[in-house]
Amino acid sequence: MSKATTRETLLDAGWEILASRGFNHAGLDLIVQSAGVPKGSFYYYFPSKQAFGLAVLDRFAARISEQLTQYLDDETLSPLERLRRLSESLLACLESRGCRQGCLVGNLCQEMADQSEAFRERLDAIFQDWRGRYARCLRLAQAAGEIPEDLDPEAVAEFWLCGWQGAILRAKAARSAAPLRTFLDIMFGSVLRM
Amino acid sequence: MSKATTRETLLDAGWEILASRGFNHAGLDLIVQSAGVPKGSFYYYFPSKQAFGLAVLDRFAARISEQLTQYLDDETLSPLERLRRLSESLLACLESRGCRQGCLVGNLCQEMADQSEAFRERLDAIFQDWRGRYARCLRLAQAAGEIPEDLDPEAVAEFWLCGWQGAILRAKAARSAAPLRTFLDIMFGSVLRM
Repeated sequence: MSKATTRETLLDAGWEILASRGFNHAGLDLIVQSAGVPKGSFYYYFPSKQAFGLAVLDRFAARISEQLTQYLDDETLSPLERLRRLSESLLACLESRGCRQGCLVGNLCQEMADQSEAFRERLDAIFQDWRGRYARCLRLAQAAGEIPEDLDPEAVAEFWLCGWQGAILRAKAARSAAPLRTFLDIMFGSVLRM
Repeated sequence: MSKATTRETLLDAGWEILASRGFNHAGLDLIVQSAGVPKGSFYYYFPSKQAFGLAVLDRFAARISEQLTQYLDDETLSPLERLRRLSESLLACLESRGCRQGCLVGNLCQEMADQSEAFRERLDAIFQDWRGRYARCLRLAQAAGEIPEDLDPEAVAEFWLCGWQGAILRAKAARSAAPLRTFLDIMFGSVLRM
């Protein structure tokens, strides 16, 4: 494998293992074994397990960021329709995994925010980025007269991300997408209703 | 210490450690040391670490259940006011801990729902109990004409619990109660608004 490939193979294996076992419970042996990489080479790419965890998180955030761009910047759709399609796409993705694993950002936030300031800061920055992007689209929806004028786009974006993270968590315990569906129904049918 | 006291001391120490470190990362040595109990006696009270974790969870759920009863069954208040006071009480409790630790049910759900069917079932049952109690109070609020008639109390209760869990998670990363406040503002000011 080339250098870039080995690093990416480790990050991909890391995502899978961190998402299902958490950070503290993800042994390096398991990660290198799952990536098919000799253990010695792990430290060639990452100075520490924490640096590796943060790199896995960044890679995950970059992928979600691409998905946000794909939907929220699609000018062929109305702003509210962009939010709707994005939500359906995220729901379909979670459902295709049987509502297991959840969202790596939510998982690591729950597990690591109190234990590592480096993780907490990175996670907070990711949430803030997402919130800004949802808020921008909500502002466009307001300008287009699609949602009530008296809503505060930043606050609704924060509310939305909180609710969605909670619905993902709840869907894990229920092992059903029903909480995700309920969340979207009330979000679109009640909070954003004109 | 009496038998009952030793068991409870272990459970209290367990709550503190599980809430801040998670289940997998909570070593038995740390738990017995923190409880001031010899390690040998742990297995006198609990057949396994999982049985201990489930007992800690049950004890936490019982305390929240008392809090729900205290507020949601208070017939001196209107149903909507009961929900409002309960929410303020939960927020104050989280804020008093600097928004650290979060909710043990949410934490264990995030960490354990995929790893242990015993945990997942117990967590799902706790969520369902909470949902039923919120839904009952919402139904009373509807009957009293305090919230819109066209809301589905069960769905709104599910939405509420999801949103609240997500806001707790978000508050950990932000290390601020602002997401909890935003959640309640929109819940009461938008979803439940007449």
